[in-house]
Amino acid sequence: MHHLCDLAAAETLPRFRSGMGIDNKQSDGFDPVTEADKEAENVIRQAIRSTHPEHGILGEEHGSLNPHAEYRWIIDPIDGTRGFIAGLPLWGTLIALYHNGKPLAGIMDQPFIGERYFSNGKTSVLQFRGTSKTLQTTNTADIKSAIMLTTSPVIFTDAEMAAYQAIEQACRLARYGTDCYAYCMLASGQVDLVVESGLMIYDIAALIPIVENAGGMITGWKGETPANGGRILAAANPDLHRRALEFLLPVT
Amino acid sequence: MHHLCDLAAAETLPRFRSGMGIDNKQSDGFDPVTEADKEAENVIRQAIRSTHPEHGILGEEHGSLNPHAEYRWIIDPIDGTRGFIAGLPLWGTLIALYHNGKPLAGIMDQPFIGERYFSNGKTSVLQFRGTSKTLQTTNTADIKSAIMLTTSPVIFTDAEMAAYQAIEQACRLARYGTDCYAYCMLASGQVDLVVESGLMIYDIAALIPIVENAGGMITGWKGETPANGGRILAAANPDLHRRALEFLLPVT
Repeated sequence: MHHLCDLAAAETLPRFRSGMGIDNKQSDGFDPVTEADKEAENVIRQAIRSTHPEHGILGEEHGSLNPHAEYRWIIDPIDGTRGFIAGLPLWGTLIALYHNGKPLAGIMDQPFIGERYFSNGKTSVLQFRGTSKTLQTTNTADIKSAIMLTTSPVIFTDAEMAAYQAIEQACRLARYGTDCYAYCMLASGQVDLVVESGLMIYDIAALIPIVENAGGMITGWKGETPANGGRILAAANPDLHRRALEFLLPVT
Repeated sequence: MHHLCDLAAAETLPRFRSGMGIDNKQSDGFDPVTEADKEAENVIRQAIRSTHPEHGILGEEHGSLNPHAEYRWIIDPIDGTRGFIAGLPLWGTLIALYHNGKPLAGIMDQPFIGERYFSNGKTSVLQFRGTSKTLQTTNTADIKSAIMLTTSPVIFTDAEMAAYQAIEQACRLARYGTDCYAYCMLASGQVDLVVESGLMIYDIAALIPIVENAGGMITGWKGETPANGGRILAAANPDLHRRALEFLLPVT
């Protein structure tokens, strides 16, 4: 997975902020984020196929291969493309490995900052410029003490919005604009809750082992498996998860 | 200014993410962001007073000194404290120098990533890990092609919200959670508009020269000077500024 992230970074990083100062977004078809997304997924897929041709692969850009394989890789070459476009370094390359449909290991790489969040299925680790740190979520048990992150309030439907806002108002502090970075801050013990909706499988797959193996709890809004995306609640610990879930369970 | 930012970083950086994994936010009075804010402003003020005792100083944490001096320093040791608390590296140390009430030079330092945006009053420059780049805003002239940043929609009053939302819906893409980083992305030509409200003078002072000397235009929502904070509109160029201002002028 580390090798795959290195390959992806060689495609994404040179294209990040490459249009700085030039208004070519609409004019000549030059689209660095789409290029970066597609090329990064290409190199990841090629590397997996060359060593594990029997494995399944699902990527945001290039579809599904061997969907019923025992081992399946779930790839989002650039999660947070809006942030990427705006020059904000909170996007990440996400790669998960599923075994029989269950998340086994995951990685989030942010090559501009130089951070890599990783779980091998047992522990979760942050690698940052030559240092390595085991991750541990907080023991915050009260919603009123919790810090919450979400990508944007506009991701919620009307029915979801009321429940989301009730949690946001109950929390100590909320912050937007985070995509995959939110779950890494949760695993790091920096924040306590992430509440999102409308996620695709590749938006969340890699982050599940990172959260769980740091001590966190992550499910859908009905308490179901998060492994297929959808509405997601991630909490620093089971107590806080249970309390946050009470806000979300009534949403139909 | 670079020296002042180095001094501030020695206070902020060791406290950034220092509580990772420990739930001590409420329990024992240990508050790394407040400590970092106060200590960073202390070292900046001491350095200025030792070399320029006649200068004025206004800082977020420690108030005003010599307010009627010809030269006046405006300091926000940590702009984006919510981001700092949540572990997100989009906060910055802001230092401006005003001459007779007008912004002369400004700096935004993000020491975790290693980025420093600076204007000497003539050009604007990004220093990033040993490289240096002159900044230039985009020539995007249409709202519908524009990328907009703002810190959070909750900063707006009801009267402001309608005008803000009209711009947001007209834009190509909007993104939240940016604080001072938004203006640096504008100066870099990465985004085209920043619309905010309720800013204090120290939230915006350092960013004015950075935006203006990269080719951008920054005013209040009535077209007035932005040098005292309040409602702010920053655009990549005068044409786009004029078009965006049409949305905001009617707000009372």
